[in-house]
Amino acid sequence: MSGNSFGKLFTVTGFGESHGPALGCIVDGCPPGLEISEADLQTDLDLRKPGTSRHTTQRREADQVKILSGVFEGKTTGTPIGLLIENTDQRSKDYGKIMDRFRPGHADYTYQQKYGFRDYRGGGRSSARETAMRVAAAGIAKKYLREFYGIEIRGYLAQLGSICTETASFDWDVVHQNPFFCPDMALIPELETYMDALRKEGNAVGARVNVVATGVAPGLGEPIFDRLDADIAHAMMSINAVKGVEIGDGFDVINQKATQHRDEITPQGFLSNHAGGVLGGISSGQDVLVSIALKPTSSIRLPGRSVDIHGNAVEVVTEGRHDPCVGIRATPIAEAMLALVLMDHLLRQRAQNPQPQTTTPIIPNKCV
Amino acid sequence: MSGNSFGKLFTVTGFGESHGPALGCIVDGCPPGLEISEADLQTDLDLRKPGTSRHTTQRREADQVKILSGVFEGKTTGTPIGLLIENTDQRSKDYGKIMDRFRPGHADYTYQQKYGFRDYRGGGRSSARETAMRVAAAGIAKKYLREFYGIEIRGYLAQLGSICTETASFDWDVVHQNPFFCPDMALIPELETYMDALRKEGNAVGARVNVVATGVAPGLGEPIFDRLDADIAHAMMSINAVKGVEIGDGFDVINQKATQHRDEITPQGFLSNHAGGVLGGISSGQDVLVSIALKPTSSIRLPGRSVDIHGNAVEVVTEGRHDPCVGIRATPIAEAMLALVLMDHLLRQRAQNPQPQTTTPIIPNKCV
Amino acid sequence: MSGNSFGKLFTVTGFGESHGPALGCIVDGCPPGLEISEADLQTDLDLRKPGTSRHTTQRREADQVKILSGVFEGKTTGTPIGLLIENTDQRSKDYGKIMDRFRPGHADYTYQQKYGFRDYRGGGRSSARETAMRVAAAGIAKKYLREFYGIEIRGYLAQLGSICTETASFDWDVVHQNPFFCPDMALIPELETYMDALRKEGNAVGARVNVVATGVAPGLGEPIFDRLDADIAHAMMSINAVKGVEIGDGFDVINQKATQHRDEITPQGFLSNHAGGVLGGISSGQDVLVSIALKPTSSIRLPGRSVDIHGNAVEVVTEGRHDPCVGIRATPIAEAMLALVLMDHLLRQRAQNPQPQTTTPIIPNKCV
Amino acid sequence: MSGNSFGKLFTVTGFGESHGPALGCIVDGCPPGLEISEADLQTDLDLRKPGTSRHTTQRREADQVKILSGVFEGKTTGTPIGLLIENTDQRSKDYGKIMDRFRPGHADYTYQQKYGFRDYRGGGRSSARETAMRVAAAGIAKKYLREFYGIEIRGYLAQLGSICTETASFDWDVVHQNPFFCPDMALIPELETYMDALRKEGNAVGARVNVVATGVAPGLGEPIFDRLDADIAHAMMSINAVKGVEIGDGFDVINQKATQHRDEITPQGFLSNHAGGVLGGISSGQDVLVSIALKPTSSIRLPGRSVDIHGNAVEVVTEGRHDPCVGIRATPIAEAMLALVLMDHLLRQRAQNPQPQTTTPIIPNKCV
Repeated sequence: MSGNSFGKLFTVTGFGESHGPALGCIVDGCPPGLEISEADLQTDLDLRKPGTSRHTTQRREADQVKILSGVFEGKTTGTPIGLLIENTDQRSKDYGKIMDRFRPGHADYTYQQKYGFRDYRGGGRSSARETAMRVAAAGIAKKYLREFYGIEIRGYLAQLGSICTETASFDWDVVHQNPFFCPDMALIPELETYMDALRKEGNAVGARVNVVATGVAPGLGEPIFDRLDADIAHAMMSINAVKGVEIGDGFDVINQKATQHRDEITPQGFLSNHAGGVLGGISSGQDVLVSIALKPTSSIRLPGRSVDIHGNAVEVVTEGRHDPCVGIRATPIAEAMLALVLMDHLLRQRAQNPQPQTTTPIIPNKCV
Repeated sequence: MSGNSFGKLFTVTGFGESHGPALGCIVDGCPPGLEISEADLQTDLDLRKPGTSRHTTQRREADQVKILSGVFEGKTTGTPIGLLIENTDQRSKDYGKIMDRFRPGHADYTYQQKYGFRDYRGGGRSSARETAMRVAAAGIAKKYLREFYGIEIRGYLAQLGSICTETASFDWDVVHQNPFFCPDMALIPELETYMDALRKEGNAVGARVNVVATGVAPGLGEPIFDRLDADIAHAMMSINAVKGVEIGDGFDVINQKATQHRDEITPQGFLSNHAGGVLGGISSGQDVLVSIALKPTSSIRLPGRSVDIHGNAVEVVTEGRHDPCVGIRATPIAEAMLALVLMDHLLRQRAQNPQPQTTTPIIPNKCV
Repeated sequence: MSGNSFGKLFTVTGFGESHGPALGCIVDGCPPGLEISEADLQTDLDLRKPGTSRHTTQRREADQVKILSGVFEGKTTGTPIGLLIENTDQRSKDYGKIMDRFRPGHADYTYQQKYGFRDYRGGGRSSARETAMRVAAAGIAKKYLREFYGIEIRGYLAQLGSICTETASFDWDVVHQNPFFCPDMALIPELETYMDALRKEGNAVGARVNVVATGVAPGLGEPIFDRLDADIAHAMMSINAVKGVEIGDGFDVINQKATQHRDEITPQGFLSNHAGGVLGGISSGQDVLVSIALKPTSSIRLPGRSVDIHGNAVEVVTEGRHDPCVGIRATPIAEAMLALVLMDHLLRQRAQNPQPQTTTPIIPNKCV
Repeated sequence: MSGNSFGKLFTVTGFGESHGPALGCIVDGCPPGLEISEADLQTDLDLRKPGTSRHTTQRREADQVKILSGVFEGKTTGTPIGLLIENTDQRSKDYGKIMDRFRPGHADYTYQQKYGFRDYRGGGRSSARETAMRVAAAGIAKKYLREFYGIEIRGYLAQLGSICTETASFDWDVVHQNPFFCPDMALIPELETYMDALRKEGNAVGARVNVVATGVAPGLGEPIFDRLDADIAHAMMSINAVKGVEIGDGFDVINQKATQHRDEITPQGFLSNHAGGVLGGISSGQDVLVSIALKPTSSIRLPGRSVDIHGNAVEVVTEGRHDPCVGIRATPIAEAMLALVLMDHLLRQRAQNPQPQTTTPIIPNKCV
């Protein structure tokens, strides 16, 4: 229990079920003086929200966030910020069929075993619906990081099923111009064809999402346990459907030699960034590079073998509205979690060291 | 700062530098009544300790752990358990050369930037030397999990450089019979040849380590943030040199269809374990499957470009004694971190639910 | 920052300003299966709410609480419980006069210095208005403690100014039958006369509130720092206007001899309860006795010397609606905080010891 | 369990029993660059240590502290500081008589009930012996607060039994010149006579200790729960034998009018300090005034009625060596706890606000 808070100094605590009256969270620890409005938070919420293309769930939610406290005359006051989003388009009747049975590969079974019973409507608390509040809360962190520290956090869909989007014509500018968060417009037709076929089949598929933070100063991260990369791993793995997390070269390091992996340093910059911006659990000043793997949702139309709450064998077919690829909408969520980690560690580093003490010059963040 | 504690109810807090007088930790939250002795903790410490084969660092440490408190008449009392290991084989002079320069790919640079100066002897706090205390502390958790819950945690070296050890003749019984934690004795000659060449070359290589927990009941994990898999990811990524973490199929899920990934359920058992024993952040009762990627150490004899603390370009050659593949000794460390996570979540689940409340039968942990 | 959460396993996190749109909190860590409704929480809220007698502030708030999550089909699900209370009777214009000056003895000055600026309307976050959420959240804990453990928590006004209410005709049953939470109806006229004069004078006065928990089993409390009494002291001192906390005999122990203070034990019960139910930071099974001192509010009509935000000398007169004795409404708040502490420690003790292990008979909780 | 850590950013975690081989603690979160040596910590340890006069326990402990990590070339490195004190003068045989019985008023009974069995030698973990580590850890905080912020923390014995020491001839300079921490040398003969008689009688008595922090800037404290005064109350009540805590006027506020209690403000300073330096849970810049009540120890020679672990009625006489007034040695312990709270909140405030943002002039800390 009490696992619904994230962050030590910049703390986000959330509540809310998929089909409850509302979702909410409390952002505790935001420094005073940040200019913030509901509009600032809405931008990312709109990127995440459902029903914006035929390739995501058809549930229609405005996801309008309300700021209930902690902001006075347009500025944060240093007191906790209460955020609320009302649910408007629940369709709980779709779930009558699964109230007494478990979707294979879904949290239905584990929630039942952990809590003894469960809110089955739309998956209750286990639904990715709660990630709306992560995105809303992170909107505050993102703005603070950008305005006071020049830190930018951006993500994109790196792979969908077998389609890799990291092509030669990678372009950050187009990521928000298509419903897939794809960095190469040339791939959109292929992605659409693939998703249309998948939807028709009633199946789902996995995806990879990459997130990059630029402008992170050296020194963030608190070894030995609260390393920056360890907290990033925690944050990313806490996102629904994520099964793997990589920093920098990730699993490629297994077959790398030291001479190949180590990022050599020159006064003008690093010669590479295999480390992904983290050394010894502390940011190096290079871009922070994170990659995550998202599994296919288990809520599909194709029948699967399972059991009911009495332990009897049953066949499960999921109705209701679902994302055939949850990875698509995961991009703003992954950005959000990275923002929360960086904001928290920024405050922790500030506590330790309000003014940098080192006289060692900082290596420029560029690969020369 | 204050990032040296792990766990919420079973809390391990550590201290100690590679070349300081001693390493220690405090295990706070161990329930009373567990029979424990220094010998119980020594077993895993001896598996991790350096100098046991020519393939690891030649530093000789007995790694003899002392229990200083929390145990009375052979049983834990419920009060904090103080553990201490004295360092005996420091050779700090080896490090004179790097006191004012940064090994590329090493924490030297980030520690200098974060703290303003650093204990350069053997890497100070950033050295994997501290992991001895993780293994010692986890020895208590492992014994508790085994004796009171029948949970077993085992790991092995899954890949070293390009050599994959997950062969058809996988055998748990041989893992501790060779210095590589390799599950297939037939591969030992190949591994030795590879490591001898690597050592001769003065280079280092990465590795993959897998860890499995068996006997974990359904219900461990505290969504939405303190999910079991999220805490595992945090724990694993906090181990020195780890750059990637996977649960179950990990990054393979990207190209999986839902019908392929979801683990179908029958009253007799699950039909597969792609999920790796965690659904919705909560244990399912299946084996918990974790895989991590470890980078090659950056402390190698081959020269690399870098800068000194004044920002001048220098060439760095690392002397001193180092593991050409830190992944080899990482197996007991990865087991230790998984044990700490499971122990902590077991206590958290006990707080919520001293007696299981569900009437839903538990699916047997076997793949039928 | 991030000081708005209370409790380690039963965690309450709050937000909201006196004159903002709403107050709210998240109760994270409530075990599943507790039957709870908004009506259950309303009882105590109505005891605390303003405007119920001429002796408290005339601000009229319905303090209607809404449960937004964590409860399904009338039972807690184990997921976080979101609670919301809308503000309806703000009268912010009253505060125009103090927006740029500091009430002597008020948080105005310290909030300004800490945060750089402040929401001056009704005291913003520093107003006792936020205690409504403490009472709402504790309603859940109180019900759980009562239904599953037979623990009862009750408080009363022990002293108002110079009027001590702990008379020979002490009667728990009348405490909720008068606006003062006074245990002796015979004193009501005297209290009313006193308060009427005080209001007329435009002044305020302090008070003492006592709280008692009955039915607490031995074993709650986590030495050495998270002692039960230490957490109670923390909880009580976190209530607005509290300047002192006592457990059992409190400050009377200074002049007690050991033979006088120690509570002797017989198999039939303890011979006294000077300790107030806590020994070595752990509950003894006797009643937990807590007493707190509340200062007079600093928001009064009588002019006082102060400075404005530019440091100029000014005279301050507080308009707006205020309690001439904040101690009166503090009784349900003090009960609430004791309930939160006991609930949290109950869960912590359950984690350590799901089934009592001791074979030592428990001393009955009665003074023989 | 896991209640042995104190502080959120400056975190002290301790271990050790009265008759175990050693006591220790880990100070995690000390900023780098503080010059610190074992000698710096020894000063306060020597003030607290037993056996220095006939008025305290005759147990002889050198209480020599060792720094095992976190300090390099005489300066803190920012990594955790491990501290160790070896026990040298245990005399466990004295306790054979109470191994199966409970001293009335002692933690014997509650530890037995909580943990199922206990280390009865010298009270095990419940002994005030552990406070040595609090004093050692706080020595680091005290030095940091003094050197970087000019904060001084001083305490004294304010009352012993019926003897009040706050006389007209109060003198800080003599507090450390007598074994009672008494601020008036003229009272020493009276105190000695009193204590000699008490010791002869085989009884014990309570005491009051006051602590003052000077030089605390406005802005420390994190409402609404982690108020500065709330954390002070927690810290003080966590000290063995403490039954009451007051801030400023404490319980005297009950009978104060607002006009009497509120500290009026002028540009030159405050007109009084009834608040004790805390308003709304945040430091005001005035001296922080704390007062605590300590009960008489329950370990006395005079027989008392009790039960044994089987519930049988017994008579208990305590042998072994004990303080007839634990309040005497409590002065450095109370200073230590106040230092830990201020250090933690200083870091928390730094995280929020590295550079003061307010333009409001700070009121000088003097009563004009």
